[in-house]
Amino acid sequence: MIEDKNQQRTSLGNLGEFGLIEHLTHDITTSNVGTLKGIGDDAAVLDFKDKKVVVSTDLLVEGVHFDLAYMPLKHLGYKAVVVNVSDIYAMNAVPTQITVSIAVSNRFPVEALDELYDGIKLAAKIYGVDIVGGDTTSSQKGMILSITAIGEADADAIAYRNGAGSTDLLVVTGDVGAAYMGLQVLERERQVFQVNPQNQPDLDAYSYLIERQLKPEARRDIKEILKALDVKPTAMIDVSDGLSSEIIHIAKQSGVGCNLYEEKIPVDPQLINVCEEFNLDITTVAINGGEDYELLFTIKMEDFEKIKGNPNFTIIGHMTQESEGIHLITRANTKIPLKSRGWNALQNESEE
Amino acid sequence: MIEDKNQQRTSLGNLGEFGLIEHLTHDITTSNVGTLKGIGDDAAVLDFKDKKVVVSTDLLVEGVHFDLAYMPLKHLGYKAVVVNVSDIYAMNAVPTQITVSIAVSNRFPVEALDELYDGIKLAAKIYGVDIVGGDTTSSQKGMILSITAIGEADADAIAYRNGAGSTDLLVVTGDVGAAYMGLQVLERERQVFQVNPQNQPDLDAYSYLIERQLKPEARRDIKEILKALDVKPTAMIDVSDGLSSEIIHIAKQSGVGCNLYEEKIPVDPQLINVCEEFNLDITTVAINGGEDYELLFTIKMEDFEKIKGNPNFTIIGHMTQESEGIHLITRANTKIPLKSRGWNALQNESEE
Repeated sequence: MIEDKNQQRTSLGNLGEFGLIEHLTHDITTSNVGTLKGIGDDAAVLDFKDKKVVVSTDLLVEGVHFDLAYMPLKHLGYKAVVVNVSDIYAMNAVPTQITVSIAVSNRFPVEALDELYDGIKLAAKIYGVDIVGGDTTSSQKGMILSITAIGEADADAIAYRNGAGSTDLLVVTGDVGAAYMGLQVLERERQVFQVNPQNQPDLDAYSYLIERQLKPEARRDIKEILKALDVKPTAMIDVSDGLSSEIIHIAKQSGVGCNLYEEKIPVDPQLINVCEEFNLDITTVAINGGEDYELLFTIKMEDFEKIKGNPNFTIIGHMTQESEGIHLITRANTKIPLKSRGWNALQNESEE
Repeated sequence: MIEDKNQQRTSLGNLGEFGLIEHLTHDITTSNVGTLKGIGDDAAVLDFKDKKVVVSTDLLVEGVHFDLAYMPLKHLGYKAVVVNVSDIYAMNAVPTQITVSIAVSNRFPVEALDELYDGIKLAAKIYGVDIVGGDTTSSQKGMILSITAIGEADADAIAYRNGAGSTDLLVVTGDVGAAYMGLQVLERERQVFQVNPQNQPDLDAYSYLIERQLKPEARRDIKEILKALDVKPTAMIDVSDGLSSEIIHIAKQSGVGCNLYEEKIPVDPQLINVCEEFNLDITTVAINGGEDYELLFTIKMEDFEKIKGNPNFTIIGHMTQESEGIHLITRANTKIPLKSRGWNALQNESEE
């Protein structure tokens, strides 16, 4: 047999649109009873009976939201799903279906899309969502991913951003800031690699941070834990843009103020070590970092005893009257107004 | 007052992400009773009670699906919505909500996005859908639009692609091929303009074709018309990739064959004239053109009398046993196998 050196690179053009969709989706099955029709028609058909339907969508652009230099395609596919189902969990709802649209330039062979889809399919399996539709097309430059997540909830369980009361406690799951520092470590390693490609980096000391960046998980467990504790969040949001930014969303939309206590903010020991190494302030990283995909929520004060000491939760502050503003209370007991750093890629982008 | 010559160009960076979203969406209200929560939370919340939920999504990429040289932004926004709600109508369902995600490079000022959103909001109003969410971000190059449409239907009304029987009649609404020829006219005018910018084109003879390309409409009327006639389509699809391609989808998914009669294919008189002018075969354009957003469906033979003579519908053929294949029967009564031209942008794109 003649060996084909390019056998691992199948050009997208060889398959054509319909061939590519068939190639990528032929092994996708559905498992939710509410998924009446998935891929293969003009639209998916879903049945929610008497549940409310929850819908969220995200657009991820290469060079803006991800860098394929350190984000393996399988991880990217996985993360794209996680980011979306996280928004559904942030409504105190359960994701049930996703649609996946992808635009890619011809520089990607079919095998690259297979890698990406492997990650998407793995995440769909782990989070129990059916892939029910999408669109596959070409781009002029780079890769663009658009995922829409659909979920369900009982009407009285849904937690909006605007329900926080002025005496509510502010709670966050897990720890924050690690995903951001993971990105800093990866960026540094890339620069080292560019100078010396022979260098074999030892990343053990950063494993947690890198995993939080490359393979984040959404908090699918929280809804059930809160239900078992008989706690209903009065407001909830997921930590994607950064703790600070999310607190401001809840406070402003609820018409209340907030005091966030620096000493209470949960961070991983690795974060502390690496912040020292990078000469960065831990709290600045923890409140502005983003991409943690933890859940931030408020609860009524009388629920304090139910949450207290639970390893899944940290009470990091309390809401106040709106007139008191939104502040970080430092370890030195000074009050600093919280700022929304948000996402500033539009500002950083240079003119074409 | 000092006149600001740049007052019509507000840079995206000036607003930032949250400012831009607020700017674009502050006047969006919802009108469907099933829209419990629209823009402004992690996800939208929708109530479909005992209806089935129908979901479809499309990704539109500048330079692949649209060319801003002849597509005004307002029209682009309008068309992007139409393309999506058309998929919902193609399920014999009613669209109720959309999400809108946009990625743009910095070359677009805020006013350009306003134009785009004006078209999106106009279409949303005309088609009665609520804009309930989305994402606004930056791209490295050009504009990318991702729209997801959500609709509702009674379970027994939904028309899938795979329900056609082997003796069913094949029906199309309106006429086909015009949108494709509209694009050819616009492309020619652009080339003329590049040679002689002073040239004032007279496009009256092409008005219908150009409108079909720049401002297509989805067939929101068909569901009610069919219901009034007591006709339930056995299979249905919208004509986006071209009549030929859509017939093959229905036939293959239904496990049947098809005879399409050339003499029956409905075309507009303008199409006939312009095909002569461009020296193109009318039937080739009509069956491969695409972007017509008409509905193609099959009905049981016994419904023939209900449809016959109705100006909304043309019976263009009939289904057959699968073994007979899928053919065009020409005016000269020869049988030609139908081919799926589909969408070949991936093949046409050059390597980066």
